[in-house]
Amino acid sequence: MGLNITEKIISAHLLNGEMEPGTEVGLRIDQTLTQDATGTMAYLQFEAMGIDKVQTELSVSYVDHNTLQMGFRNPDDHQYLRTVAAKHGVVFSPAGTGICHQLHLENFAKPGKTLIGSDSHTPTAGGLGMLAMGAGGLSVALAMAGQPYSIPMPKVVKVELSGKLTGWASAKDIILKLLELKTVKGGVGKVFEFAGEGVKTLSVPERAVITNMGAELGATTSIFPSDENTKAFLKAMGREEDWSELIADADATYAEVVEINLSELEPLVAQPHMPDRVVTVKSLAGLKVNQSAIGSCTNSSYSDLKTTALILQDQQLPEGVDLMISPGSKQVLKMLASDGLIANFIDSGARLLECTCGPCIGMGGSPTSAGVSVRTFNRNFEGRSGTQDAQVYLASPQTAAKLALAGEFTDPATWGTPPAKIDFPEEVPSIRHLFIFPPENRAEVEIVRGPNIVPLETFSALPDQISSEIRLKVEDDITTDHILPAGAQITALRSNIPAISEYIFSRVDEGFVGRMKAADNGIILGGENYGQGSSREHAALGPRHLGVVAVITKSLARIHRANLVNFGILPLVLSEKSDYDKLSEGSKLTIDTTTITPGGETVVMADGAEIKVKNDLSTKELEIIKAGGLLNYVGKQL
Amino acid sequence: MGLNITEKIISAHLLNGEMEPGTEVGLRIDQTLTQDATGTMAYLQFEAMGIDKVQTELSVSYVDHNTLQMGFRNPDDHQYLRTVAAKHGVVFSPAGTGICHQLHLENFAKPGKTLIGSDSHTPTAGGLGMLAMGAGGLSVALAMAGQPYSIPMPKVVKVELSGKLTGWASAKDIILKLLELKTVKGGVGKVFEFAGEGVKTLSVPERAVITNMGAELGATTSIFPSDENTKAFLKAMGREEDWSELIADADATYAEVVEINLSELEPLVAQPHMPDRVVTVKSLAGLKVNQSAIGSCTNSSYSDLKTTALILQDQQLPEGVDLMISPGSKQVLKMLASDGLIANFIDSGARLLECTCGPCIGMGGSPTSAGVSVRTFNRNFEGRSGTQDAQVYLASPQTAAKLALAGEFTDPATWGTPPAKIDFPEEVPSIRHLFIFPPENRAEVEIVRGPNIVPLETFSALPDQISSEIRLKVEDDITTDHILPAGAQITALRSNIPAISEYIFSRVDEGFVGRMKAADNGIILGGENYGQGSSREHAALGPRHLGVVAVITKSLARIHRANLVNFGILPLVLSEKSDYDKLSEGSKLTIDTTTITPGGETVVMADGAEIKVKNDLSTKELEIIKAGGLLNYVGKQL
Repeated sequence: MGLNITEKIISAHLLNGEMEPGTEVGLRIDQTLTQDATGTMAYLQFEAMGIDKVQTELSVSYVDHNTLQMGFRNPDDHQYLRTVAAKHGVVFSPAGTGICHQLHLENFAKPGKTLIGSDSHTPTAGGLGMLAMGAGGLSVALAMAGQPYSIPMPKVVKVELSGKLTGWASAKDIILKLLELKTVKGGVGKVFEFAGEGVKTLSVPERAVITNMGAELGATTSIFPSDENTKAFLKAMGREEDWSELIADADATYAEVVEINLSELEPLVAQPHMPDRVVTVKSLAGLKVNQSAIGSCTNSSYSDLKTTALILQDQQLPEGVDLMISPGSKQVLKMLASDGLIANFIDSGARLLECTCGPCIGMGGSPTSAGVSVRTFNRNFEGRSGTQDAQVYLASPQTAAKLALAGEFTDPATWGTPPAKIDFPEEVPSIRHLFIFPPENRAEVEIVRGPNIVPLETFSALPDQISSEIRLKVEDDITTDHILPAGAQITALRSNIPAISEYIFSRVDEGFVGRMKAADNGIILGGENYGQGSSREHAALGPRHLGVVAVITKSLARIHRANLVNFGILPLVLSEKSDYDKLSEGSKLTIDTTTITPGGETVVMADGAEIKVKNDLSTKELEIIKAGGLLNYVGKQL
Repeated sequence: MGLNITEKIISAHLLNGEMEPGTEVGLRIDQTLTQDATGTMAYLQFEAMGIDKVQTELSVSYVDHNTLQMGFRNPDDHQYLRTVAAKHGVVFSPAGTGICHQLHLENFAKPGKTLIGSDSHTPTAGGLGMLAMGAGGLSVALAMAGQPYSIPMPKVVKVELSGKLTGWASAKDIILKLLELKTVKGGVGKVFEFAGEGVKTLSVPERAVITNMGAELGATTSIFPSDENTKAFLKAMGREEDWSELIADADATYAEVVEINLSELEPLVAQPHMPDRVVTVKSLAGLKVNQSAIGSCTNSSYSDLKTTALILQDQQLPEGVDLMISPGSKQVLKMLASDGLIANFIDSGARLLECTCGPCIGMGGSPTSAGVSVRTFNRNFEGRSGTQDAQVYLASPQTAAKLALAGEFTDPATWGTPPAKIDFPEEVPSIRHLFIFPPENRAEVEIVRGPNIVPLETFSALPDQISSEIRLKVEDDITTDHILPAGAQITALRSNIPAISEYIFSRVDEGFVGRMKAADNGIILGGENYGQGSSREHAALGPRHLGVVAVITKSLARIHRANLVNFGILPLVLSEKSDYDKLSEGSKLTIDTTTITPGGETVVMADGAEIKVKNDLSTKELEIIKAGGLLNYVGKQL
């Protein structure tokens, strides 16, 4: 039986497991990438493993998130990342060089290879035929240490593209259409694999727009074939030798097929506050626009920004409309400058920002209160822009530029003739010399740790007897944002667990941290769906630092549960949900951990009475917790 | 008797007083400028005066400080500033268009005119023969209302420049030399007027470097003649008609003469943490450099940045050295792009930031912990960079670029041949269309106030009897930074007195705000030199908002004393300094304000005992305080 692209890559990298959807497969990882907001912790964890040199073919450390440098913490993090990279054989990309995914596509991605990155938009490299997945920092650290990366074998969905984009429709409208069809929950456990005649009409940067934002489907990843377009892109980048063909076998099978006719697409937009709330641009005609922002890992390629510059040519923004432009890389900026297009931005009144993530992650560029902002980004979650009541719409660069010029939503039928599709130049100016490649003499490298770089603490093994109290009782649907808030101020502390731990539950209960500090340990009592939301491992690391030994809930969100295991916190579930009401802050609990068995039930003494808790831990997971977390566990193995 | 330039401008604008050094003169103000960090308050104050249209020849509102937009506050402020400008006939410069002083020089400054701006570096326009002075927001608001601006008639110092800059010496080294000679206190009450053959060798942008940083001398302002170079500059800017000759009479007299021979200058640098700690660059050879930053209102002109680009050509920064470049205006950026010089920045590894103040005011770009940063700015006060222990050196763009490339201080004798002096182009591309000029139909303009724009409160008149307590007792040398800290987070609240008041004395005594809120009113007891430092009027407005009625000290700093008067707080001085020790937090005081006379002594009951306090208020100042502040007082006059 033939294989699809996903199966071809997985089978070529399979270290353990069977390619049976839903069962766990362990993959060899060829490349890793990190960005700075998650990377500091990943490298601290890698250091804790005591390995001299990364075991991957290539690992790259990018700085693109915390680049504003409002104080010593960001630059100290950059300094640590640069020196720890040199020490252990990792390529380093300094702040301002560009956005990790855009740079990786331009410089390092290879068809047929595997990549994991500590950023959820790592699937961008799927536009170049790579199996590229987002992961937690510790998973990336383990991959750098040569350990397999385990995922449930995904179902593969074929997205059959027919026809050809016309008029003002763009690659962004393809992924917006797919989000409309499948929703933000429609991709869980799946890989979206693109096929059909329409694929040939799309350049690698266009494909990368689609695989990038495929993350919003909740998918494991998205991937395109590697074909002549891929070869042309790599040739232009000066690395034709990295190309290999990768296409699905003619008799490949898929779990599901979705069809999209590109010829039928028109400009679309995702409405606040979810990427799947997709409608046509024309349906919103008349809505006033206060701001547009063009850039981010989704839409910051040369063709995206050249198209923008051509739309802006001889045009001027209306009074009060702010247009921000963040090129994806210095290569893109250099090409625009060489074309004389910077003047188009300036004369239109647009603001040219640095080549970083910037406004996409709320690092500057926030809209006015209740402002309508049209952004070429991938997420429009409430408050992500930095302005809680802003109304953020997601669209293509074409749409964002046209609406900014109009100062309101208009019908694309009135937009006139679109600029011709940008042909990717046959040769582009390299910025490869701006990366810092590891030196020969790695032994002589000194890792520089400013006061914001706090080495990982060693967590102790799980004691046989836990005598503790419930230090916090929370309701249902507590998110990782409740556990650890985001925002520039707190995000600057991502490399400093003691400091960031001061903010654990700070917006839920200001007294929690104080109570934990005054005690030896503590237990959190949660409701349903505890820990939903982002994958930030700091939401487990922080509580562990404060002495949380167990979380007892009605139910747990999947990724946070995995993070609790990784950092040695018992994730327990009440056998009888009604026991939730019997317990309160201050309840005294004793747990005999020697009685906990994988998937079993355990009796816990609570204020002198017996209650039952269960777990769904595997044997290995229980061993990890008993060892005091995954780092201790792996330390024994390595 | 002949007149110098300063006397010529003052005599042509004298509304009251005599040109007798030290006595008060009231001047007609032709132009005003504001920036956003001080401007919101200035326009709120202007609005409170109830005047329809500014009475100046030209008033411009620039947005260049709070441009990062980490949340709704900055963009809401910009929106308010844009709409209030349109309403009242003020020209508006949107965020990212450039730095106020660079833009004003390029587009609006006129020889022989008067300008006050709510920014201490307003003297930049003195490079073009303008009498340009920094002032508090309320003073600017009053000037916009057509009121005279009062200053003590300054002494005029002649700075006789001979010779010609050679080698790597630049305009920055002239002002650094002057700071070395005169120190940061040497200019108080003085205007530095430049003369001599050396003046002819300096272009307007070079002259503006000198007058800009002349603010660090503590001077009222600095000024150059308006000559053929001035005419050439204005002609290139497309506004030759704004030129008029302005030179001192041959028999003009000066209070003092300083001589500087330009031919003898070499590259200089101001060491941490004061602009007058000047030494030669070569004397520091070997000191490692972590960062350079080129830009700010001091050194961000086309010639400065083109020189930088030429130094960087075919060069690359060493690993770990960060070089940030912030052009002074979009005109500068456009010229650099047109010359093909953006590629020089990119290929060297430099980071191109937006055309704003940026790192100069700690709005991003902070150095690493204890990092050495060479900056082309005007101030290197401790912590101003955002990194408390950073070591900031002030230097020319030439020096900053060469040291960044070397990664350490080196002897300029080893730098090779400097780039040829940049001839200012005969014609430059205008960006004048990016300013928003007031509309015809100002009546229809609606002023938009986001939640961060809080209208001024009305302060009540001074009561005849004050019964209060000392709510805070502080030591000597309390600065306005102690009273109200700086930093991006707090500075974003400059348009919101209730919110910013929460930070009054927050780093001195966290309980102060709470105590003030729990009481009807309060008195602050200070030591010597209370209120030294910056001119921020928020350090008086905030305490007044909280209910402070009087400040009793051993002695008061001049500008803060004026701000206390402006906002209706009694500035009193202990007749017997030893009484300071008898008083403490909680001491109960009663003051019969009807017994206070201008310059007189008053008996105050303190915990049942009599103590004596004196004041140095003029009759008008006491009337202002009794009215509840200058706005109330002026309201009666207008």
